[in-house]
Amino acid sequence: MSYLKNDRYLRALQCLPVDYTPVWMMRQAGRYLPEYRKLRLKAGNFMTLCQTPELACEATLQPLKRFDLDAAIIFSDILTIPDAMGLGLHFEAGEGPKFVKPILSNIDIEQLPIPDPEQSLKYVMDAIRLTKKELAGKIPLIGFSGSPWTLATYMLEGGSSKAFTKIKKMMYCDPKALHLLLNKLSTCIALYLNAQIQAGAQSIMIFDTWGGVLSHQCYQEFSLYYMQMILSQLTRGVKSPDVTSYVPITLFTKGGGLWLDHIMQTGCDAIGVDWTVDLSKIKHKGQVAVQGNLDPSILYAGKSIIESNVDTVLTEFGGYNGHIFNLGHGIHQDTPVEHVQYLIDAVHQQSKRYHYD
Amino acid sequence: MSYLKNDRYLRALQCLPVDYTPVWMMRQAGRYLPEYRKLRLKAGNFMTLCQTPELACEATLQPLKRFDLDAAIIFSDILTIPDAMGLGLHFEAGEGPKFVKPILSNIDIEQLPIPDPEQSLKYVMDAIRLTKKELAGKIPLIGFSGSPWTLATYMLEGGSSKAFTKIKKMMYCDPKALHLLLNKLSTCIALYLNAQIQAGAQSIMIFDTWGGVLSHQCYQEFSLYYMQMILSQLTRGVKSPDVTSYVPITLFTKGGGLWLDHIMQTGCDAIGVDWTVDLSKIKHKGQVAVQGNLDPSILYAGKSIIESNVDTVLTEFGGYNGHIFNLGHGIHQDTPVEHVQYLIDAVHQQSKRYHYD
Repeated sequence: MSYLKNDRYLRALQCLPVDYTPVWMMRQAGRYLPEYRKLRLKAGNFMTLCQTPELACEATLQPLKRFDLDAAIIFSDILTIPDAMGLGLHFEAGEGPKFVKPILSNIDIEQLPIPDPEQSLKYVMDAIRLTKKELAGKIPLIGFSGSPWTLATYMLEGGSSKAFTKIKKMMYCDPKALHLLLNKLSTCIALYLNAQIQAGAQSIMIFDTWGGVLSHQCYQEFSLYYMQMILSQLTRGVKSPDVTSYVPITLFTKGGGLWLDHIMQTGCDAIGVDWTVDLSKIKHKGQVAVQGNLDPSILYAGKSIIESNVDTVLTEFGGYNGHIFNLGHGIHQDTPVEHVQYLIDAVHQQSKRYHYD
Repeated sequence: MSYLKNDRYLRALQCLPVDYTPVWMMRQAGRYLPEYRKLRLKAGNFMTLCQTPELACEATLQPLKRFDLDAAIIFSDILTIPDAMGLGLHFEAGEGPKFVKPILSNIDIEQLPIPDPEQSLKYVMDAIRLTKKELAGKIPLIGFSGSPWTLATYMLEGGSSKAFTKIKKMMYCDPKALHLLLNKLSTCIALYLNAQIQAGAQSIMIFDTWGGVLSHQCYQEFSLYYMQMILSQLTRGVKSPDVTSYVPITLFTKGGGLWLDHIMQTGCDAIGVDWTVDLSKIKHKGQVAVQGNLDPSILYAGKSIIESNVDTVLTEFGGYNGHIFNLGHGIHQDTPVEHVQYLIDAVHQQSKRYHYD
């Protein structure tokens, strides 16, 4: 009923029956692949790789040439939005992301522009359009963004953080200023994700990488609230026998295992979960889809260990519809490439018994 | 019925009624205090401060001179055990802990000695004996250790870590080797904690700072199992009308909010919880004591914000016995000292309404 050759991923996101559990991996286009490292070297720096649609497209497609993955995710970075807002993103060798102009004052927040995604982020849309063409309906393409809270951590701390001192100071001492920033980010992200959908993204994932550092009250007020605001603004289309007529949204808060019930109530289609969560204990299985949740470190181990851990995850989820197999976080850059093949084979082969023939 | 002038902390740990909620803070003796920074400078380096009983005693007592705290915790470091095992702990200015000889092979694990705590760790016992004398029954003294899993992370990674690559590789690829290490550490820790009890520690806390990075299965196998093994070996004494005849044990896994039921089933007396946990949802309140759980970043904010957040925590725990007020992690070093006073006053004053007159 759909023009997609492999629509397992989209079907699973809608909790529809599938023949086996679809699988993809966060950061599947990345440094563990020798061909990616070559491409990265060719690009010169990471931002050029992101900002050149042909290169971003190539990076997106690389893992698909090796592995029988059930979804592609556009190669990009969660920090493209703050960069487009004028903060000046750059990556130095061996270090995490840094901003030339981090937010230092409330005036900085007030003055932040709302970028037009088809202007300053056009390179992402072009990469999506190009990749979509290249994929030629083989598998669906995922678009994504960081959550408002997660982007705000980088924008205030100036880069990666351990203690999140600056943003937490603002949260407790001047919550209005932080709410203004999160509001602006939500507007930007909604525009950005709608542009991605318009450009051809068939599913959207929102990465709330740092929501888990919040208290249970603050998580709802400063992270989940804004993700829900974005959700309500996305043009998801309508469900129909053609699964591609609807764009399902996945919310993933790393370390958010205690709050899954709340996340599910936002109206998202799927939740991402990390490896701290026992999938057998998740409520509403078969109603909201679940993506996860293997510890990426398991890929350091050999075939039989990978297989038995895949078996555990599949058994925990049992025979419900609506499971997308994934890692609980991005794949480590020192993962042996052949181990990824073991994982994908194991998921496809072992999951058949939970699904229709 | 006890010789302690203030036994609220020990009573709360036994879920007995108290007149107000006892409060202490993780890392209450530390860098946020100007007198600590002076003492640290005098000692020359951190290890000298730990290893000189008079200085460790002075550091322990410093916060008590300022604040009406309901418990003291001996000034020391969780990495004294690996240091006594020969790994050579040192701290460089502005950096975290480092080991001169981290564990590099299975032979290193096999050759690790089990230190006699009254020999190579005698300085800790001497500090406890001295501090106990100085406290003169004013408030109880807490002894502590890191959990086997947490110590093992530092011993294998060589210091602090973000991705825990080495220990996770071992866990998935050579679990037997890791189990040997954790077994040895459990033996050392049980000996160490019993020596602390013998020296006068009136309550014990086990810090499982990094248990939260594990999957739910691995947490049980590689962290909780060994904490339970230690628990079964500790000489806790017997409960009697004199609360000091019993040494209650608190287990604290940071990021362990999903596993509180399992932690409670170990036979510990109390669980520590971080700020991701909603205390109103904790089961078995009044049976196993609960310590926590304010985000230490709240102490950046002013008096009224601190007071309202204290109120929230107290309200969440409601009128149950068995609550020890604490932060959900160590106090930040840039915390304004006067804000600590606001916190302690707020706990003592606001909690009265939940307790007997």
